[in-house]
Amino acid sequence: MDQQKVDILISSSVWDPRPWVEGLSKSSWVGNVHVWPTEADLSNVEALFVWKPLADGVIDRLPNIKWISSLGAGVDHLMTDSQIPRHISITRIVDPFLARDMTNYVIMGLMMHQRSMLSHMKHQKSKIWERITYKPLKVGVMGLGALGRHLSEKLVSLGFEVFGYSRTRKTLDGVTCYDETNRNTFLSQTEVLVNLLPVTPQTTDILDASLFQKLTKGAFLINVARGNHLVENDLMEALDSEHLSGALLDVFRDEPLPINNLLWEHPKVTITPHVASVTTPSSAIALLLDNLKRLRGKEPLLHTVDIRKGY
Amino acid sequence: MDQQKVDILISSSVWDPRPWVEGLSKSSWVGNVHVWPTEADLSNVEALFVWKPLADGVIDRLPNIKWISSLGAGVDHLMTDSQIPRHISITRIVDPFLARDMTNYVIMGLMMHQRSMLSHMKHQKSKIWERITYKPLKVGVMGLGALGRHLSEKLVSLGFEVFGYSRTRKTLDGVTCYDETNRNTFLSQTEVLVNLLPVTPQTTDILDASLFQKLTKGAFLINVARGNHLVENDLMEALDSEHLSGALLDVFRDEPLPINNLLWEHPKVTITPHVASVTTPSSAIALLLDNLKRLRGKEPLLHTVDIRKGY
Repeated sequence: MDQQKVDILISSSVWDPRPWVEGLSKSSWVGNVHVWPTEADLSNVEALFVWKPLADGVIDRLPNIKWISSLGAGVDHLMTDSQIPRHISITRIVDPFLARDMTNYVIMGLMMHQRSMLSHMKHQKSKIWERITYKPLKVGVMGLGALGRHLSEKLVSLGFEVFGYSRTRKTLDGVTCYDETNRNTFLSQTEVLVNLLPVTPQTTDILDASLFQKLTKGAFLINVARGNHLVENDLMEALDSEHLSGALLDVFRDEPLPINNLLWEHPKVTITPHVASVTTPSSAIALLLDNLKRLRGKEPLLHTVDIRKGY
Repeated sequence: MDQQKVDILISSSVWDPRPWVEGLSKSSWVGNVHVWPTEADLSNVEALFVWKPLADGVIDRLPNIKWISSLGAGVDHLMTDSQIPRHISITRIVDPFLARDMTNYVIMGLMMHQRSMLSHMKHQKSKIWERITYKPLKVGVMGLGALGRHLSEKLVSLGFEVFGYSRTRKTLDGVTCYDETNRNTFLSQTEVLVNLLPVTPQTTDILDASLFQKLTKGAFLINVARGNHLVENDLMEALDSEHLSGALLDVFRDEPLPINNLLWEHPKVTITPHVASVTTPSSAIALLLDNLKRLRGKEPLLHTVDIRKGY
C-alpha cells in the first residue's frame, strides 16, 4: 500500500512558524506544509496545528480536516472556539520537557520565596549583610494533571511537604491529596500555592478573595497556569492587607500585560512574561509526527482532549 | 554499670548557644553543659562543640577532652587550629537537611541564571514584556562529598546534564565524573560551575583566572563552599571581560563582607549572606547525641574527619 502523505496547515499568530515548517517538512509522512494566512488551495489539508488564537475563517477553508493539534500544552483556545466541528479529534502537546521546565521554574519561585531573595537583593544594593532565617514550606499544588503530578513528585524528592488538589481525588506517592469535597482543608495547610489547573468554566476566577482568605496567613502564590484563573484585584487586596506575602505570576488575562496594569509595579509581585515553560519546536515536532503516523494508520491519537471536561 | 553522663563545652562565637544548650540538656546522656567563656571548672568536660573560630585558650582548660565536633558541616576552622592535640577525635555535622537546603539553594541559583531572572526583574521595573529564550544547561559540580553527591543526584532527576569533579574519581549514576587527571575536560564542558569543594591547602584559591579561562564562554559561577576558594579579583576580571556571564556568591573570605568590597556593587554578582544551608540546632543535636552515646559506649564515632586529607 502506498503511503499517502498528510498535508498540514499551521496557524500560529504569536510564534514564528518557520522552525515548525522546517522540522515537519523533513518527515516522509508530511506532504505540503501551509502557513496561515495563505491563498493556496487547502482542500487536501487533513491536519491543522494551531497556536492561539485560531484565526477566523480557517476551518471554512479545510473541507478535509480530520485532526487539530494545539502547538502547546494548553487547549483552552480550541475548547472555546465555535468554528471547530465537534467530531474533529483535538490533541495537545504533552512534552516531557514542558513538565521539566515548568517544574524547575516553580522550584525557582518557591526557593526565591523561602530564601527571601527579593530582600537579599535589596540588601545587596545597600551593602547590608543580614542573615535571614528560613523554614520548611508546605506546598499546595492545585491541578494534578501531567504538569502538577511531575511537579509534586519532584518537590517530594527535594524534601518539601506537598499537598495536592484536583477535582477528583488522585493518589500520588508522598503527597496528601484532596478533592472538591475537602478543598478548604487543602487550602488551610498551604503556605505556597502553585496553580496548575486547566482552564474550564469551573476554574475561571478560582483564585479570588474567598480562596485567598482560606490560605495560611503569609501564604505565597505562584500562578503558572492561565491568567483567567486569577482575579487580579483580589490578589492585590490580599497582598496589601498582608494576608498574602507575595506572588510570582507568569500568566495574565491580557498578554502582553498592559502597561497600565497595576501588577507591574506592585512591590510584592514578581512578573515573568509567560516563560515558565515554552514548547520548543524540536521536542513538539516529534510528538506531532507520532500522531500523524497514527492518523494515517487509523490508530487512536495520543493526548486527545475530552471536550466535555474541557481538558 | 551506671551510666556516666558526659559534660560538654560549647564554644560558638557567632551563633546564639542557647538552643544548643537547651536541646542537649534534655538528654539523659548529658551532664553539665558549659558555654565559653566561663569561669567554671571544666576538668570533667569530655566533649567540645565548636562553631568557628575556636577561641584561644579553650583547649588548655580541658584536660579530659576526648572528642571535638564542629557544629556545622565545615571543619576547616578546626583543621588549621594548632591548639588541638592530634589524638583527639574530630567530627562534623553531616545533616541530611544541610544537603537538602544546599541543593535547593543551588537549584534556585541555577534556575535564576537559566531563566534570566535578573533581566526579567529589571524589565518589570520598566514595564517591559520581553520573552527571553532559555536553553538546557550543563552543570559542573566541583566536590563530590555528601553535599556534592546529593546535589548531583537531584540535578540529574530534574533533567540537567551533570558533570562531576573530585580529587579522586567517584562514580555517580547519570553523572560523568572527572578527577585531577582530566580536570580541564570537566571545565571545558561546564556552563554553570558549582563549587562544593572542601577547603584544603590544595583547594584554596582554586577559583582563579586560569580556571575561569578553561570554562565555556558565558559560564556562570555558584560558590557555596568557602570564600577562600575564590580569588575575588580574578572573578571580577572574568566578568568584566565577559568570559563569565555572572556569579551567585554565598561565602566570602571576610564575613560579613566588608562594605568596601567591590563585589557588593558588581552588576553581574548576586550576593547572599552565607545562608545557602544553615544547620538548625534541632537536626544537628540528634546527630551529636548519637555520637555522644558512641563515645560513652567506646564505639567508633560517626562522621569523623581525616586530618591528613583535611576533610
